[in-house]
Amino acid sequence: MATSDVQPPSTMDDPVYRTGVLELLGLLAYGEISACERLAEDAKMAPDLKHKVEIAAMATAEFHHFEKLRDRLVELGEDPFAVMQPFAPTFERFHGQTTPSDWLEGLVKAYVGDGLAADFYREIAAYLDPDTRTLVLDTLSGTGHSEFVVDAIRQAIDEDHRVGGRLALWGRRLMGEALSQAQMVVAERDALSTVLVGGVDHPGMDLAAIGRMFTRLTEAHAARMDKLGLAP
Amino acid sequence: MATSDVQPPSTMDDPVYRTGVLELLGLLAYGEISACERLAEDAKMAPDLKHKVEIAAMATAEFHHFEKLRDRLVELGEDPFAVMQPFAPTFERFHGQTTPSDWLEGLVKAYVGDGLAADFYREIAAYLDPDTRTLVLDTLSGTGHSEFVVDAIRQAIDEDHRVGGRLALWGRRLMGEALSQAQMVVAERDALSTVLVGGVDHPGMDLAAIGRMFTRLTEAHAARMDKLGLAP
Repeated sequence: MATSDVQPPSTMDDPVYRTGVLELLGLLAYGEISACERLAEDAKMAPDLKHKVEIAAMATAEFHHFEKLRDRLVELGEDPFAVMQPFAPTFERFHGQTTPSDWLEGLVKAYVGDGLAADFYREIAAYLDPDTRTLVLDTLSGTGHSEFVVDAIRQAIDEDHRVGGRLALWGRRLMGEALSQAQMVVAERDALSTVLVGGVDHPGMDLAAIGRMFTRLTEAHAARMDKLGLAP
Repeated sequence: MATSDVQPPSTMDDPVYRTGVLELLGLLAYGEISACERLAEDAKMAPDLKHKVEIAAMATAEFHHFEKLRDRLVELGEDPFAVMQPFAPTFERFHGQTTPSDWLEGLVKAYVGDGLAADFYREIAAYLDPDTRTLVLDTLSGTGHSEFVVDAIRQAIDEDHRVGGRLALWGRRLMGEALSQAQMVVAERDALSTVLVGGVDHPGMDLAAIGRMFTRLTEAHAARMDKLGLAP
Protein backbone atom coordinates (compact mmCIF):
# COMPACT_ATOMS: atom_id res chain seq x y z
CA MET A 1 0.00 0.00 0.00
CA ALA A 2 1.35 3.42 -0.88
CA THR A 3 1.75 5.77 2.08
CA SER A 4 0.43 9.31 1.83
CA ASP A 5 1.16 12.34 4.00
CA VAL A 6 -2.52 13.23 4.06
CA GLN A 7 -5.19 10.85 5.35
CA PRO A 8 -8.90 11.51 5.95
CA PRO A 9 -9.23 13.96 8.85
CA SER A 10 -11.10 13.20 12.06
CA THR A 11 -14.19 15.07 13.19
CA MET A 12 -15.06 17.13 16.25
CA ASP A 13 -17.33 14.30 17.47
CA ASP A 14 -14.18 12.45 18.41
CA PRO A 15 -13.30 13.66 21.94
CA VAL A 16 -9.54 13.20 21.59
CA TYR A 17 -9.55 15.01 18.25
CA ARG A 18 -11.71 17.78 19.72
CA THR A 19 -9.33 18.25 22.66
CA GLY A 20 -6.42 18.34 20.24
CA VAL A 21 -8.09 20.93 18.04
CA LEU A 22 -8.95 23.09 21.05
CA GLU A 23 -5.31 22.90 22.11
CA LEU A 24 -4.19 23.77 18.61
CA LEU A 25 -6.54 26.79 18.44
CA GLY A 26 -5.41 27.88 21.92
CA LEU A 27 -1.78 27.55 20.88
CA LEU A 28 -2.28 29.53 17.68
CA ALA A 29 -4.41 32.18 19.44
CA TYR A 30 -1.79 32.68 22.15
CA GLY A 31 0.89 32.80 19.48
CA GLU A 32 -0.97 35.54 17.60
CA ILE A 33 -1.66 37.72 20.63
CA SER A 34 1.88 37.34 21.89
CA ALA A 35 3.27 38.16 18.42
CA CYS A 36 1.02 41.22 18.39
CA GLU A 37 2.37 42.26 21.77
CA ARG A 38 6.01 41.73 20.85
CA LEU A 39 5.67 43.55 17.54
CA ALA A 40 4.14 46.50 19.38
CA GLU A 41 7.17 46.41 21.68
CA ASP A 42 9.60 46.23 18.74
CA ALA A 43 7.84 49.12 16.99
CA LYS A 44 9.32 51.38 19.66
CA MET A 45 12.79 50.74 18.20
CA ALA A 46 11.73 51.93 14.74
CA PRO A 47 14.06 54.57 13.30
CA ASP A 48 11.16 56.62 11.96
CA LEU A 49 7.40 56.94 11.89
CA LYS A 50 7.02 55.14 8.55
CA HIS A 51 8.75 51.99 9.82
CA LYS A 52 6.91 52.18 13.11
CA VAL A 53 3.65 52.13 11.17
CA GLU A 54 4.77 49.12 9.10
CA ILE A 55 5.37 47.13 12.27
CA ALA A 56 2.15 48.36 13.84
CA ALA A 57 0.31 47.14 10.70
CA MET A 58 1.78 43.68 11.27
CA ALA A 59 0.77 43.78 14.93
CA THR A 60 -2.76 44.74 13.90
CA ALA A 61 -2.92 41.84 11.41
CA GLU A 62 -1.85 39.45 14.17
CA PHE A 63 -4.57 40.83 16.39
CA HIS A 64 -7.20 40.12 13.73
CA HIS A 65 -5.86 36.56 13.41
CA PHE A 66 -6.22 36.22 17.15
CA GLU A 67 -9.82 37.47 16.95
CA LYS A 68 -10.76 34.80 14.40
CA LEU A 69 -9.27 32.02 16.50
CA ARG A 70 -10.85 33.36 19.69
CA ASP A 71 -14.26 33.64 18.00
CA ARG A 72 -14.03 30.01 16.91
CA LEU A 73 -13.21 28.91 20.46
CA VAL A 74 -16.29 30.83 21.65
CA GLU A 75 -18.40 29.17 18.91
CA LEU A 76 -17.16 25.81 20.19
CA GLY A 77 -18.50 26.72 23.64
CA GLU A 78 -15.11 27.28 25.23
CA ASP A 79 -13.65 30.12 27.32
CA PRO A 80 -10.92 31.17 24.90
CA PHE A 81 -8.67 32.54 27.61
CA ALA A 82 -8.82 29.33 29.62
CA VAL A 83 -7.88 27.38 26.50
CA MET A 84 -5.05 29.77 25.66
CA GLN A 85 -3.54 30.19 29.11
CA PRO A 86 -1.61 26.88 29.25
CA PHE A 87 0.46 28.05 26.28
CA ALA A 88 1.66 31.21 28.00
CA PRO A 89 4.92 29.58 29.23
CA THR A 90 5.76 28.36 25.70
CA PHE A 91 5.61 31.85 24.23
CA GLU A 92 7.17 33.48 27.30
CA ARG A 93 10.12 31.12 26.85
CA PHE A 94 10.32 31.70 23.11
CA HIS A 95 10.15 35.49 23.34
CA GLY A 96 12.37 35.54 26.42
CA GLN A 97 15.06 33.68 24.45
CA THR A 98 14.62 35.82 21.35
CA THR A 99 14.28 39.41 22.52
CA PRO A 100 15.70 41.54 19.70
CA SER A 101 18.58 43.73 20.81
CA ASP A 102 17.97 46.30 18.08
CA TRP A 103 15.60 47.31 15.32
CA LEU A 104 17.18 45.09 12.65
CA GLU A 105 16.92 41.98 14.84
CA GLY A 106 13.29 42.93 15.45
CA LEU A 107 12.67 43.15 11.70
CA VAL A 108 14.29 39.76 11.03
CA LYS A 109 12.26 38.22 13.83
CA ALA A 110 9.03 39.69 12.45
CA TYR A 111 9.80 38.43 8.96
CA VAL A 112 11.08 34.99 9.91
CA GLY A 113 8.31 34.51 12.48
CA ASP A 114 5.56 35.62 10.13
CA GLY A 115 6.82 33.30 7.39
CA LEU A 116 7.34 30.32 9.65
CA ALA A 117 3.89 30.73 11.18
CA ALA A 118 2.29 30.88 7.72
CA ASP A 119 4.18 27.75 6.60
CA PHE A 120 3.20 25.89 9.75
CA TYR A 121 -0.47 26.86 9.34
CA ARG A 122 -0.40 25.59 5.77
CA GLU A 123 1.27 22.32 6.80
CA ILE A 124 -1.16 21.47 9.58
CA ALA A 125 -4.25 22.51 7.61
CA ALA A 126 -4.19 19.24 5.70
CA TYR A 127 -4.67 17.22 8.90
CA LEU A 128 -7.70 19.14 10.13
CA ASP A 129 -11.44 18.74 9.68
CA PRO A 130 -12.83 21.03 6.93
CA ASP A 131 -14.17 23.77 9.27
CA THR A 132 -10.97 24.06 11.26
CA ARG A 133 -8.93 23.88 8.07
CA THR A 134 -10.85 26.76 6.53
CA LEU A 135 -10.35 28.82 9.68
CA VAL A 136 -6.63 28.10 9.76
CA LEU A 137 -6.18 28.93 6.07
CA ASP A 138 -8.29 32.10 6.39
CA THR A 139 -6.21 33.21 9.34
CA LEU A 140 -3.05 32.62 7.38
CA SER A 141 -4.23 34.63 4.39
CA GLY A 142 -4.09 37.85 6.36
CA THR A 143 -0.30 37.91 6.68
CA GLY A 144 2.13 39.30 4.14
CA HIS A 145 2.77 42.72 5.66
CA SER A 146 6.43 41.97 6.12
CA GLU A 147 7.82 42.43 2.61
CA PHE A 148 9.18 45.88 3.50
CA VAL A 149 11.62 44.05 5.78
CA VAL A 150 13.54 42.69 2.78
CA ASP A 151 14.47 46.19 1.58
CA ALA A 152 15.40 47.39 5.05
CA ILE A 153 17.67 44.42 5.82
CA ARG A 154 19.37 44.41 2.42
CA GLN A 155 20.04 48.12 2.72
CA ALA A 156 21.51 47.70 6.21
CA ILE A 157 23.85 44.97 4.90
CA ASP A 158 24.90 47.16 1.97
CA GLU A 159 25.83 49.88 4.43
CA ASP A 160 27.75 47.57 6.78
CA HIS A 161 28.60 44.01 5.77
CA ARG A 162 29.21 42.89 9.36
CA VAL A 163 25.47 43.31 9.93
CA GLY A 164 24.85 40.36 7.60
CA GLY A 165 26.90 37.95 9.71
CA ARG A 166 25.25 39.00 12.95
CA LEU A 167 21.73 38.78 11.52
CA ALA A 168 22.42 35.39 9.91
CA LEU A 169 23.34 34.00 13.35
CA TRP A 170 20.24 35.65 14.78
CA GLY A 171 18.02 34.03 12.15
CA ARG A 172 19.48 30.61 12.94
CA ARG A 173 18.86 31.17 16.64
CA LEU A 174 15.24 32.16 15.97
CA MET A 175 14.61 29.01 13.96
CA GLY A 176 16.33 26.85 16.57
CA GLU A 177 14.25 28.30 19.40
CA ALA A 178 11.01 27.97 17.42
CA LEU A 179 11.68 24.30 16.66
CA SER A 180 12.71 23.57 20.23
CA GLN A 181 9.56 25.19 21.67
CA ALA A 182 7.40 23.40 19.09
CA GLN A 183 8.93 20.09 20.11
CA MET A 184 8.30 20.78 23.81
CA VAL A 185 4.67 21.73 23.19
CA VAL A 186 3.95 18.58 21.24
CA ALA A 187 5.79 16.42 23.78
CA GLU A 188 3.71 17.89 26.63
CA ARG A 189 0.32 17.54 24.94
CA ASP A 190 -0.94 14.14 23.93
CA ALA A 191 -4.19 15.27 22.30
CA LEU A 192 -2.46 17.99 20.31
CA SER A 193 0.20 15.61 19.07
CA THR A 194 -2.51 13.09 18.20
CA VAL A 195 -4.09 15.65 15.84
CA LEU A 196 -0.83 15.83 13.96
CA VAL A 197 0.79 12.46 14.51
CA GLY A 198 -2.35 10.37 14.70
CA GLY A 199 -3.36 7.71 17.20
CA VAL A 200 -4.91 4.27 17.02
CA ASP A 201 -8.18 5.58 15.61
CA HIS A 202 -6.92 8.92 14.39
CA PRO A 203 -5.00 9.07 11.17
CA GLY A 204 -2.26 11.68 10.95
CA MET A 205 1.29 12.04 9.82
CA ASP A 206 3.58 9.08 10.18
CA LEU A 207 7.11 9.74 11.40
CA ALA A 208 8.47 10.00 7.88
CA ALA A 209 5.81 12.60 7.06
CA ILE A 210 6.79 14.61 10.15
CA GLY A 211 10.39 14.45 9.02
CA ARG A 212 9.40 15.71 5.58
CA MET A 213 7.37 18.52 7.14
CA PHE A 214 10.37 19.69 9.18
CA THR A 215 12.51 19.53 6.07
CA ARG A 216 10.02 21.70 4.18
CA LEU A 217 9.81 24.22 7.06
CA THR A 218 13.60 24.40 7.28
CA GLU A 219 13.98 24.82 3.52
CA ALA A 220 11.38 27.58 3.45
CA HIS A 221 13.21 29.28 6.33
CA ALA A 222 16.48 29.04 4.37
CA ALA A 223 14.78 30.56 1.33
CA ARG A 224 13.52 33.47 3.44
CA MET A 225 16.98 34.06 4.91
CA ASP A 226 18.37 34.05 1.38
CA LYS A 227 15.79 36.61 0.31
CA LEU A 228 16.95 38.86 3.15
CA GLY A 229 20.53 38.47 1.91
CA LEU A 230 21.47 36.31 4.93
CA ALA A 231 23.33 32.99 4.96
CA PRO A 232 20.82 30.39 6.18
CA MET B 1 -28.37 89.09 12.50
CA ALA B 2 -28.50 85.94 14.59
CA THR B 3 -25.10 84.30 15.17
CA SER B 4 -24.71 80.58 14.59
CA ASP B 5 -21.92 78.26 15.70
CA VAL B 6 -21.87 76.66 12.27
CA GLN B 7 -21.23 78.66 9.11
CA PRO B 8 -20.72 77.40 5.52
CA PRO B 9 -17.45 75.49 5.41
CA SER B 10 -14.55 76.45 3.16
CA THR B 11 -13.22 74.26 0.36
CA MET B 12 -9.88 72.67 -0.39
CA ASP B 13 -9.37 75.18 -3.25
CA ASP B 14 -8.65 77.76 -0.59
CA PRO B 15 -4.90 77.40 0.18
CA VAL B 16 -5.14 78.51 3.80
CA TYR B 17 -8.03 76.16 4.44
CA ARG B 18 -6.18 73.35 2.68
CA THR B 19 -3.09 73.89 4.83
CA GLY B 20 -5.26 73.93 7.91
CA VAL B 21 -7.02 70.69 6.96
CA LEU B 22 -3.67 69.00 6.24
CA GLU B 23 -2.47 70.08 9.66
CA LEU B 24 -5.66 68.83 11.25
CA LEU B 25 -5.38 65.44 9.52
CA GLY B 26 -1.70 65.23 10.47
CA LEU B 27 -2.56 66.07 14.07
CA LEU B 28 -5.34 63.47 14.24
CA ALA B 29 -3.22 60.82 12.47
CA TYR B 30 -0.32 61.34 14.86
CA GLY B 31 -2.74 61.28 17.77
CA GLU B 32 -4.16 57.94 16.63
CA ILE B 33 -0.81 56.24 16.04
CA SER B 34 0.56 57.51 19.32
CA ALA B 35 -2.60 56.38 21.15
CA CYS B 36 -2.17 52.97 19.52
CA GLU B 37 1.43 52.84 20.70
CA ARG B 38 0.64 53.90 24.26
CA LEU B 39 -2.27 51.48 24.58
CA ALA B 40 0.02 48.67 23.44
CA GLU B 41 2.42 49.76 26.16
CA ASP B 42 -0.34 49.88 28.79
CA ALA B 43 -1.60 46.43 27.76
CA LYS B 44 1.56 45.01 29.35
CA MET B 45 0.21 46.04 32.78
CA ALA B 46 -3.02 44.06 32.28
CA PRO B 47 -3.77 41.70 35.18
CA ASP B 48 -4.89 38.92 32.82
CA LEU B 49 -5.12 37.89 29.21
CA LYS B 50 -8.77 38.96 28.82
CA HIS B 51 -8.02 42.55 29.84
CA LYS B 52 -4.87 42.60 27.76
CA VAL B 53 -6.97 41.67 24.75
CA GLU B 54 -9.52 44.42 25.50
CA ILE B 55 -6.77 47.02 25.43
CA ALA B 56 -5.19 45.48 22.34
CA ALA B 57 -8.60 45.75 20.62
CA MET B 58 -8.64 49.48 21.39
CA ALA B 59 -5.09 49.83 20.06
CA THR B 60 -6.12 48.05 16.88
CA ALA B 61 -9.13 50.36 16.44
CA GLU B 62 -6.83 53.38 16.79
CA PHE B 63 -4.54 51.90 14.17
CA HIS B 64 -7.43 51.61 11.72
CA HIS B 65 -8.36 55.23 12.42
CA PHE B 66 -4.80 56.16 11.65
CA GLU B 67 -4.95 54.22 8.36
CA LYS B 68 -8.01 56.17 7.19
CA LEU B 69 -6.42 59.52 7.97
CA ARG B 70 -3.12 58.47 6.36
CA ASP B 71 -4.92 57.25 3.23
CA ARG B 72 -6.69 60.60 2.89
CA LEU B 73 -3.38 62.44 3.17
CA VAL B 74 -2.01 60.23 0.39
CA GLU B 75 -5.14 60.93 -1.72
CA LEU B 76 -4.48 64.63 -1.24
CA GLY B 77 -1.01 64.11 -2.72
CA GLU B 78 0.87 64.50 0.57
CA ASP B 79 3.55 62.44 2.31
CA PRO B 80 1.54 61.52 5.40
CA PHE B 81 4.61 61.12 7.60
CA ALA B 82 5.93 64.56 6.67
CA VAL B 83 2.54 66.06 7.53
CA MET B 84 2.35 64.16 10.83
CA GLN B 85 5.91 64.66 12.05
CA PRO B 86 5.50 68.26 13.31
CA PHE B 87 2.95 67.00 15.84
CA ALA B 88 5.33 64.50 17.42
CA PRO B 89 6.39 66.93 20.20
CA THR B 90 2.77 67.62 21.14
CA PHE B 91 2.02 63.97 21.76
CA GLU B 92 5.41 63.27 23.30
CA ARG B 93 4.69 66.04 25.80
CA PHE B 94 1.17 64.83 26.45
CA HIS B 95 2.11 61.18 26.95
CA GLY B 96 5.27 62.14 28.82
CA GLN B 97 3.14 64.08 31.32
CA THR B 98 0.50 61.37 31.58
CA THR B 99 2.32 58.05 31.79
CA PRO B 100 0.07 55.76 33.83
CA SER B 101 1.76 54.43 36.93
CA ASP B 102 -0.45 51.34 37.05
CA TRP B 103 -3.10 49.38 35.21
CA LEU B 104 -6.06 51.36 36.59
CA GLU B 105 -4.53 54.69 35.58
CA GLY B 106 -3.97 53.19 32.13
CA LEU B 107 -7.63 52.19 31.92
CA VAL B 108 -8.86 55.64 32.96
CA LYS B 109 -6.54 57.24 30.43
CA ALA B 110 -7.79 54.94 27.65
CA TYR B 111 -11.42 55.68 28.52
CA VAL B 112 -11.07 59.41 29.04
CA GLY B 113 -8.82 59.80 26.01
CA ASP B 114 -11.07 57.77 23.74
CA GLY B 115 -14.13 59.76 24.82
CA LEU B 116 -12.46 63.14 24.57
CA ALA B 117 -11.09 62.36 21.11
CA ALA B 118 -14.54 61.26 19.92
CA ASP B 119 -16.14 64.45 21.30
CA PHE B 120 -13.48 66.61 19.71
CA TYR B 121 -13.92 64.88 16.32
CA ARG B 122 -17.66 65.49 16.51
CA GLU B 123 -17.18 69.15 17.45
CA ILE B 124 -14.77 70.00 14.66
CA ALA B 125 -16.68 68.04 12.00
CA ALA B 126 -19.20 70.86 11.64
CA TYR B 127 -16.48 73.28 10.51
CA LEU B 128 -15.07 71.08 7.78
CA ASP B 129 -15.80 70.62 4.09
CA PRO B 130 -18.13 67.68 3.40
CA ASP B 131 -15.38 65.19 2.35
CA THR B 132 -13.21 65.90 5.35
CA ARG B 133 -16.23 65.90 7.62
CA THR B 134 -17.29 62.45 6.40
CA LEU B 135 -13.77 61.14 6.97
CA VAL B 136 -13.61 62.58 10.48
CA LEU B 137 -17.03 61.20 11.42
CA ASP B 138 -16.22 57.78 9.89
CA THR B 139 -12.99 57.65 11.85
CA LEU B 140 -14.86 58.48 15.02
CA SER B 141 -17.47 55.77 14.52
CA GLY B 142 -14.91 53.02 15.05
CA THR B 143 -14.36 53.77 18.75
CA GLY B 144 -16.47 52.45 21.63
CA HIS B 145 -14.26 49.56 22.71
CA SER B 146 -13.73 51.06 26.13
CA GLU B 147 -16.99 50.26 27.92
CA PHE B 148 -15.34 47.38 29.80
CA VAL B 149 -13.31 50.03 31.61
CA VAL B 150 -16.40 51.18 33.55
CA ASP B 151 -16.83 47.78 35.21
CA ALA B 152 -13.14 47.43 35.99
CA ILE B 153 -12.83 50.88 37.60
CA ARG B 154 -16.07 50.62 39.61
CA GLN B 155 -15.00 47.22 40.89
CA ALA B 156 -11.58 48.53 41.92
CA ILE B 157 -13.24 51.40 43.84
CA ASP B 158 -15.63 48.97 45.54
CA GLU B 159 -12.63 46.97 46.70
CA ASP B 160 -10.69 49.99 47.94
CA HIS B 161 -12.31 53.43 48.22
CA ARG B 162 -8.98 55.26 48.28
CA VAL B 163 -8.56 54.23 44.64
CA GLY B 164 -11.46 56.52 43.73
CA GLY B 165 -9.74 59.62 45.09
CA ARG B 166 -6.47 58.87 43.37
CA LEU B 167 -8.11 58.15 39.99
CA ALA B 168 -10.32 61.27 40.24
CA LEU B 169 -7.17 63.39 40.54
CA TRP B 170 -5.63 61.46 37.68
CA GLY B 171 -8.66 62.13 35.46
CA ARG B 172 -8.45 65.84 36.20
CA ARG B 173 -4.76 65.85 35.34
CA LEU B 174 -5.44 64.06 32.02
CA MET B 175 -8.06 66.63 31.03
CA GLY B 176 -5.83 69.51 32.10
CA GLU B 177 -2.89 68.20 30.03
CA ALA B 178 -5.10 67.54 27.01
CA LEU B 179 -6.51 71.07 27.06
CA SER B 180 -3.11 72.61 27.61
CA GLN B 181 -1.57 70.70 24.67
CA ALA B 182 -4.57 71.54 22.48
CA GLN B 183 -4.14 75.22 23.28
CA MET B 184 -0.42 75.10 22.44
CA VAL B 185 -1.05 73.36 19.12
CA VAL B 186 -3.63 75.92 18.03
CA ALA B 187 -1.46 78.82 19.20
CA GLU B 188 1.52 77.51 17.17
CA ARG B 189 -0.40 76.88 13.95
CA ASP B 190 -2.15 79.73 12.18
CA ALA B 191 -3.70 77.69 9.36
CA LEU B 192 -5.01 75.05 11.72
CA SER B 193 -6.56 77.62 14.01
CA THR B 194 -8.05 79.39 11.00
CA VAL B 195 -9.96 76.20 10.11
CA LEU B 196 -11.58 76.30 13.53
CA VAL B 197 -11.61 79.97 14.43
CA GLY B 198 -12.04 81.41 10.96
CA GLY B 199 -10.17 84.25 9.25
CA VAL B 200 -11.11 87.23 7.12
CA ASP B 201 -12.42 85.04 4.29
CA HIS B 202 -12.83 81.85 6.26
CA PRO B 203 -15.85 81.47 8.46
CA GLY B 204 -15.42 79.46 11.63
CA MET B 205 -16.23 79.60 15.30
CA ASP B 206 -16.31 82.96 16.97
CA LEU B 207 -14.79 83.25 20.42
CA ALA B 208 -18.13 82.64 22.11
CA ALA B 209 -18.56 79.45 20.07
CA ILE B 210 -15.09 78.27 21.12
CA GLY B 211 -16.03 78.95 24.71
CA ARG B 212 -19.19 76.90 24.30
CA MET B 213 -17.23 74.07 22.69
CA PHE B 214 -14.82 73.92 25.64
CA THR B 215 -17.78 73.95 28.01
CA ARG B 216 -19.34 71.00 26.16
CA LEU B 217 -16.05 69.05 26.12
CA THR B 218 -15.56 69.67 29.84
CA GLU B 219 -19.14 68.65 30.64
CA ALA B 220 -18.82 65.45 28.63
CA HIS B 221 -15.56 64.70 30.46
CA ALA B 222 -17.33 65.21 33.79
CA ALA B 223 -20.12 62.86 32.71
CA ARG B 224 -17.55 60.19 31.80
CA MET B 225 -15.79 60.57 35.14
CA ASP B 226 -19.15 60.22 36.83
CA LYS B 227 -19.87 57.04 34.86
CA LEU B 228 -16.57 55.63 36.14
CA GLY B 229 -17.65 56.48 39.69
CA LEU B 230 -15.06 59.27 39.95
CA ALA B 231 -15.58 62.85 41.14
CA PRO B 232 -15.04 65.08 38.09
